[in-house]
Amino acid sequence: MDVWQAIRERRSCREFAPIPVEDDKLQAILEAGRWAPSVLNKQPWRFTVIKNQELKEGLRESCQNTVEFLHQASGWKWLGRYQVDFLVQAPIIIAVTADPRDTGADQFLPGRGESYAFSCCAAIQNMLLAAHVLGLGRLWYTLYDKEKVKQILGISPHIDLVSMVVIGYPAAVPGSVPRKPLEDLMTVLP
Amino acid sequence: MDVWQAIRERRSCREFAPIPVEDDKLQAILEAGRWAPSVLNKQPWRFTVIKNQELKEGLRESCQNTVEFLHQASGWKWLGRYQVDFLVQAPIIIAVTADPRDTGADQFLPGRGESYAFSCCAAIQNMLLAAHVLGLGRLWYTLYDKEKVKQILGISPHIDLVSMVVIGYPAAVPGSVPRKPLEDLMTVLP
Repeated sequence: MDVWQAIRERRSCREFAPIPVEDDKLQAILEAGRWAPSVLNKQPWRFTVIKNQELKEGLRESCQNTVEFLHQASGWKWLGRYQVDFLVQAPIIIAVTADPRDTGADQFLPGRGESYAFSCCAAIQNMLLAAHVLGLGRLWYTLYDKEKVKQILGISPHIDLVSMVVIGYPAAVPGSVPRKPLEDLMTVLP
Repeated sequence: MDVWQAIRERRSCREFAPIPVEDDKLQAILEAGRWAPSVLNKQPWRFTVIKNQELKEGLRESCQNTVEFLHQASGWKWLGRYQVDFLVQAPIIIAVTADPRDTGADQFLPGRGESYAFSCCAAIQNMLLAAHVLGLGRLWYTLYDKEKVKQILGISPHIDLVSMVVIGYPAAVPGSVPRKPLEDLMTVLP
């Protein structure tokens, strides 16, 4: 598939069909992540693949509690209706983790040291595009209690859980979302 | 160009030819950024395009000072040789900025609130892929003093400068960099 088409068509998916994802497709998605750019070529990303139903149930329970906490903390109504059942429905969840010490010289700048996470985000975007090309739905998921989820997945305390990527065949074709026009996003300095 | 090819071929470039970048190519790159996924569809990215030679000179001076500071702070030898002349040579620099308030519910989780920056990273990775498809070299650049560069570019204090993307026709084809094998990067939880 053409790059432009993949970039424009990619949508977030929150409804997954009970169809397993083929191993070669999973490999292709992780390969796409592996080829992302990274600070000092550190390739800080590590991919923890979760297929185990019990672990997914644990993630759902923890993340639904987090959503409930966020609902209280924010007062945002939609969080009161937000269900994270997709964490159990989707056949695959990929936890993208990294060692924060795998960062660049930005670590010596005050308030910085985030480059390792930015590299992981580049890998995730590659993975989302790859999943789309392969006909898979996917979601970039971040609403979790980091420490609790790390405990569930057995991730070491010194490792950062940057994001989770939820993958599976879509049960419904996600609708398109409105986009701001480019004129509102760009400024050319004189 | 095929998505897989773009993902695998994309390389960082630090040597640019003195050839202007066509406006339609710049637009296509920003379009690719505009279609990235974002938290709550906030589309937090804003693109400040720098072509002005005086501004680029200002960026070079400031960033070379930062590299010198980092050389002292880190003791890393390569930083003593690192020249940021590409900031002047490249015809276009895009400052990717965002308002940190354009983030998701993660702002209510302790130590979080980074989703707006992650969304910008997805946009940047789209832009790097698009630039490659268009035959352009590009660099994801982060070694700057945020406050000083914001001052040079006239960016408001409350706005975050997430990264800079340097774009132009390559003067040399960047070499490939070694990659860790996928087996070393992935774990499938039992």
